[in-house]
Amino acid sequence: MENYPINTVHRLLEPGPIILITTRDKDGNANVMTCGFHMVVQHEPPLFAVIVGPWDHSFNTLRTTKECVIAVPTVEMARTVVDIGNCSGAEMDKFEQFGLAITSGNEVGAPLINECKANIECRVSDTRMVSKYNMFVLEAVQAWSNPNLEDRRTMHHRGDGTFVVDGEIMNLKDRMVKWQEYVEE
Amino acid sequence: MENYPINTVHRLLEPGPIILITTRDKDGNANVMTCGFHMVVQHEPPLFAVIVGPWDHSFNTLRTTKECVIAVPTVEMARTVVDIGNCSGAEMDKFEQFGLAITSGNEVGAPLINECKANIECRVSDTRMVSKYNMFVLEAVQAWSNPNLEDRRTMHHRGDGTFVVDGEIMNLKDRMVKWQEYVEE
Repeated sequence: MENYPINTVHRLLEPGPIILITTRDKDGNANVMTCGFHMVVQHEPPLFAVIVGPWDHSFNTLRTTKECVIAVPTVEMARTVVDIGNCSGAEMDKFEQFGLAITSGNEVGAPLINECKANIECRVSDTRMVSKYNMFVLEAVQAWSNPNLEDRRTMHHRGDGTFVVDGEIMNLKDRMVKWQEYVEE
Repeated sequence: MENYPINTVHRLLEPGPIILITTRDKDGNANVMTCGFHMVVQHEPPLFAVIVGPWDHSFNTLRTTKECVIAVPTVEMARTVVDIGNCSGAEMDKFEQFGLAITSGNEVGAPLINECKANIECRVSDTRMVSKYNMFVLEAVQAWSNPNLEDRRTMHHRGDGTFVVDGEIMNLKDRMVKWQEYVEE
């Protein structure tokens, strides 16, 4: 995996793809969950918000270790992404179950998922919205890109078990007169 | 516009489209802004989070009136959506500038945008994350769908002035064994 510039990491999540979140507990057990409720909070330093609830096996690990990896899967993993979200790490090792290859991160204990187009190592920077909204604010501290995927299209959950896949790309950079700093990098 | 069932309103935003947010201040002046930083917080009651900062002319109105409308534009409005985000309501009436037709909502003073595929009337339900993150938590109180658009594809901002348009749809409902309540409505 190649280093992905941290100052443009918002570009991975702003389009709203379905994501995977990995964690590793203090005993070394890793887990992975699927998440459709997330957003970019700010560009610099790069902050994201994700909803992870007590109904998720990853919840306690995320709250206590304060670390995770956000992995961005492509359409080639579509069925696996849904299946990861429809079983529990309390009952199985999902990496083994789904044959996911993993790599250690640089900054956090949670694993990177090799098949994904990007992986973002994150530290939990604010837990004050957890009790009311199950919302964790994450700071991205290192990011990685997988250059070896042919089909780089992501998928977006429509909230009902259907997903819309990336289609054509429109370039409207010349109209971004107020936001040139994000266009020209 | 037709009523859109409020209990499935998360389906409009979970895929992560670029959105418009309208507001109307106490003097009756309406404004509209473009927003790519938003997410679903919970299904029921339906809560969203949006980032609106002091650099946005809509910020003070949103904070004081505690009302807005989230409008979901389609690809047919692509250039207008970008242009709305690259000028300021402090200097013009954007509805007039861009020739947007509007309709009054039922529950809030902010206007609905007729050209959009959906409009969601929202009340600000939590401002505690505004000072640190410019994050407003919104409760959706009524939603509307425009049945008269042929091309219903939305667009997703890639954070650099390029946008990915909705492509093919994958139906994986049969794998959503843990989340059947959201699939079968």
